[in-house]
Amino acid sequence: MLIFVGMGLWDEKDITCKGLEIARRSDEVYIEFYTSKLMGTNLDKIEKFIGKKIKMLERSDLEEKSRWIVERAKDRTVTILTPGDPMIATTHSSLRLEAEKRGIKTKIVNAGSIINAVCSLTGLQNYKFGKSATVSWMKSRVPLDVIMQNLSINAHTLLFLDLHPKPMTIRDAINILVDTGDVGELFAVGIARAGSENPVVRCDRLERLKSYKFGDPLHVIVVLAKLHFMEYECLRVFAHAPEELEEIVE
Amino acid sequence: MLIFVGMGLWDEKDITCKGLEIARRSDEVYIEFYTSKLMGTNLDKIEKFIGKKIKMLERSDLEEKSRWIVERAKDRTVTILTPGDPMIATTHSSLRLEAEKRGIKTKIVNAGSIINAVCSLTGLQNYKFGKSATVSWMKSRVPLDVIMQNLSINAHTLLFLDLHPKPMTIRDAINILVDTGDVGELFAVGIARAGSENPVVRCDRLERLKSYKFGDPLHVIVVLAKLHFMEYECLRVFAHAPEELEEIVE
Repeated sequence: MLIFVGMGLWDEKDITCKGLEIARRSDEVYIEFYTSKLMGTNLDKIEKFIGKKIKMLERSDLEEKSRWIVERAKDRTVTILTPGDPMIATTHSSLRLEAEKRGIKTKIVNAGSIINAVCSLTGLQNYKFGKSATVSWMKSRVPLDVIMQNLSINAHTLLFLDLHPKPMTIRDAINILVDTGDVGELFAVGIARAGSENPVVRCDRLERLKSYKFGDPLHVIVVLAKLHFMEYECLRVFAHAPEELEEIVE
Repeated sequence: MLIFVGMGLWDEKDITCKGLEIARRSDEVYIEFYTSKLMGTNLDKIEKFIGKKIKMLERSDLEEKSRWIVERAKDRTVTILTPGDPMIATTHSSLRLEAEKRGIKTKIVNAGSIINAVCSLTGLQNYKFGKSATVSWMKSRVPLDVIMQNLSINAHTLLFLDLHPKPMTIRDAINILVDTGDVGELFAVGIARAGSENPVVRCDRLERLKSYKFGDPLHVIVVLAKLHFMEYECLRVFAHAPEELEEIVE
């Protein structure tokens, strides 16, 4: 059996009690920090908390060379620990598909993900989010197109920031966005270190957010569509939004 | 301090290790089953697991009469346990806002939510979901409008089903949808008991999903936009999708 266990957002204690039990009972435990990172912990701390030796997987173990791990799950219980929630990353879906096609049972233990944390930290309402996109170091029009599509149906856009070769900051991402289109005037929320004890959440126009100090990664951005009054109130209190944000309240 | 701790999707073990520690250390612990339910457990089991007496909150405690609970958090650590992830429900955002406005610190411990589980169970890619909506017993055009808006930008739609006065089934919801618009031919995925040991996931055209037996609640529906080939493959394997689903692969 191949089991994917989400580790949540920040440190080793963001795993669920169910996930912890499963990892402890598994024959083999692996972890990957390719699809995202847990900035509040490290392999050593996680091994101590789970009480088991954990092997680190590389990108290639999850992609082109993934066959061996699926094979190991044929007659053993193999758990893969993943930052955040397991199935947000398409990499894991394809691994799961490979296993199921070869008759190997799979199971997923969900955990908190950035999708949840963004709503928690900002007060933005989940049902108003549209498609999400990734701002990558290799410039592309995709994030801009997704923002425009979402605005056309009045939906917020969650932008993930590239992690490779190094985690992109909100400032980097805004520079790239502004370079590809005329979006500096749009209101957005920058979020740093979601899930930690000291997250930073700040709402302003993109061009102004650029000069704000968000501190260490990981960072994400939400580009705002029209706001419910309640969302406006939350952003004023939780994200120091300027009063002029009222312009976009419906 | 007012702390919101997510309980995850199914039973008492879906809470995170961090959330469990916080609840155990809190002066007072409350729980609410108004915004959603935990079908795999009950108050008694949760109390035993946490090792503490837990008081149940009614809808009115979270809304018009919410002042008292905010007051209690002034000089005590008060934890509110919520099904799923705390901030998916707007009810909790407004409670948090009320506390912060009165200078009471708040904190959120995230957990897995239906948003995560839907991607896990179906293999659908999170970044392709648009806005979500609720199909309620009081007929409304909102869900249909949201489906159409999302289709216009090629995004999937997650539909929550009303819980009050009783949990709506996939069949009930499809009857309501088909009554308000010409959507029977659209492909969709019905999902029952996400997070449990025996979830049911089935993909077909809405009008055909209607006659499929999904079993006990809770149920949700995803109405599909165009699919990535990988999503198609996952739905064939994980959701018994018919071959003709290939029609909507991009």
